[in-house]
Amino acid sequence: MTLPIETWAEQVCAGEVRAISRAITAIENHAPEAEALLQRLFAKTGAAYLTGVTGAPGTGKSTLVDRLAAYYRKQDEQVGVIAVDPTSPYTGGAILGDRIRMQSHAGDAGMFIRSMATRGFMGGLARATAEVALLLDAAGKRQVLIETVGVGQDEVDIVRLADCVLVVLVPGLGDDIQNMKAGLMEIGDIFVLNKADREGAERLEQQLMAMLSLVMPRDGWHPPVVRTVASENKGIDALAAAIGKFRGHFEKSGERERKHVEHWKRRLLGMIESRLVERVLGGTDGEARLTEMARVVAERRKDPFTAVSEMLAKSGVA
Amino acid sequence: MTLPIETWAEQVCAGEVRAISRAITAIENHAPEAEALLQRLFAKTGAAYLTGVTGAPGTGKSTLVDRLAAYYRKQDEQVGVIAVDPTSPYTGGAILGDRIRMQSHAGDAGMFIRSMATRGFMGGLARATAEVALLLDAAGKRQVLIETVGVGQDEVDIVRLADCVLVVLVPGLGDDIQNMKAGLMEIGDIFVLNKADREGAERLEQQLMAMLSLVMPRDGWHPPVVRTVASENKGIDALAAAIGKFRGHFEKSGERERKHVEHWKRRLLGMIESRLVERVLGGTDGEARLTEMARVVAERRKDPFTAVSEMLAKSGVA
Repeated sequence: MTLPIETWAEQVCAGEVRAISRAITAIENHAPEAEALLQRLFAKTGAAYLTGVTGAPGTGKSTLVDRLAAYYRKQDEQVGVIAVDPTSPYTGGAILGDRIRMQSHAGDAGMFIRSMATRGFMGGLARATAEVALLLDAAGKRQVLIETVGVGQDEVDIVRLADCVLVVLVPGLGDDIQNMKAGLMEIGDIFVLNKADREGAERLEQQLMAMLSLVMPRDGWHPPVVRTVASENKGIDALAAAIGKFRGHFEKSGERERKHVEHWKRRLLGMIESRLVERVLGGTDGEARLTEMARVVAERRKDPFTAVSEMLAKSGVA
Repeated sequence: MTLPIETWAEQVCAGEVRAISRAITAIENHAPEAEALLQRLFAKTGAAYLTGVTGAPGTGKSTLVDRLAAYYRKQDEQVGVIAVDPTSPYTGGAILGDRIRMQSHAGDAGMFIRSMATRGFMGGLARATAEVALLLDAAGKRQVLIETVGVGQDEVDIVRLADCVLVVLVPGLGDDIQNMKAGLMEIGDIFVLNKADREGAERLEQQLMAMLSLVMPRDGWHPPVVRTVASENKGIDALAAAIGKFRGHFEKSGERERKHVEHWKRRLLGMIESRLVERVLGGTDGEARLTEMARVVAERRKDPFTAVSEMLAKSGVA
């Protein structure tokens, strides 16, 4: 395509769905024009509020996100949804789930939904998610919801992009243990007890409150527990209110600026790392070269310092 | 000091305590001679078995590690202990704890204990711990025990260095919640229920077994639960037997080689990253420069791509 970057950027800012979709594909493919586009769009970003939604599979995150999105649409706010599933091999806007989810918002230009899944190696998914969030921000989506399955480090990196993190729990799933997995307790700003009409909700809430009472409040914020039944649209307004309260808390306390600087420190560091590592381990054979060198070192045929120096020298970085 | 590297290396291989201590200090300070030394020693490494021991504060890890070390000494194996505390501002061999711990092994040249604590920024502690483990390996310590407080990502990176990971739990500490923190469940090869004479041990073991039944066995290994009362030296032989069984399982299954290649992939990647990032963000003002650039980006005075390019260009890497 020979569409000039400035035209493309204008179309994105105007919220044109096809221009946004093409940009996301470019971001996913790590295409050079994606960077040029985002560079151009960056000055238009910074107005979106990013809410991260995480929790174990089966907690009803998608339904919850859809209801929250619908709630914001009713408030006449434009909404972007990024559904990230690092465990899925599928990617792009073509997967079935997106189509089904989009149907309920068919014809609503103020709503944009996109799924993202496994991308190559070395933290590419967190980078891509961050860039898509910037894009939707530039496209005028004031509420961006990032939904991810909470299991590993990848997902933690993803939700850390958000201004506000919701951790979703449900009663009776895996004997309550799911809750404590992978440090989710430490990253939640708000805990959502979904499917709260199920048996065991009371007990789970008590356990949760007991656990939260042990956690030090961050910057004076005590994470609340909000009960929802997303499938019946119950508790969504209370949840939106809690998010609004969290947002207000940080804007008032002046913590917001500090948080944003911290956020960009992490992101710049990540960008520096990946740009440099890409230079050394880029290309289709990057991982194979690393694996081979690891084998050589594991067998003590070469020491790791020499191995690293050689790899850096070969890529012209050393 | 003008001791030639080859003499120093010979002294380390001979197990001379002063040479080892000096090398650890050089590693901690990230001194260039540390790399030269390790480079020279690397071919002598690969015989040590690394056991990582992690768990919340108050679980009796230190006592457990001491007892396990004493057990291996009785089997006439040389032992190295690295006690890592990322939350402590102290470091080096001078801290009180080391002295007290060394007293019980006074005059035993087959035992080396060293504490390590917070080092600068950007994952320095995990790197230093990995290098000290290599050093002790070259010094002939066939059993290297790495003890760390299990709380954050730093510690997870540290225990992932180990061939075998022990997660230590005790009854009645923080309402059993400690157990599930920060993904500890996922990294444990063996679970140690310490202070097993306390009330609640039965219940904790049942909870633990229930949780472990939900976890997929890795490469055919079902993590066992071993009960100990380290302060009374109870269960230590059973624990050593479990470690031996785990070791045998992986050596037989041929998984060991694959694990070592994975291990070196992670380490080489880490070394590449830190060597490159150091070039850009090294020096005493590195973090300040990153913070300043993050502020500029957060305020939209510059886009992040331009910011990164400028930082790379200034450091001569781009």
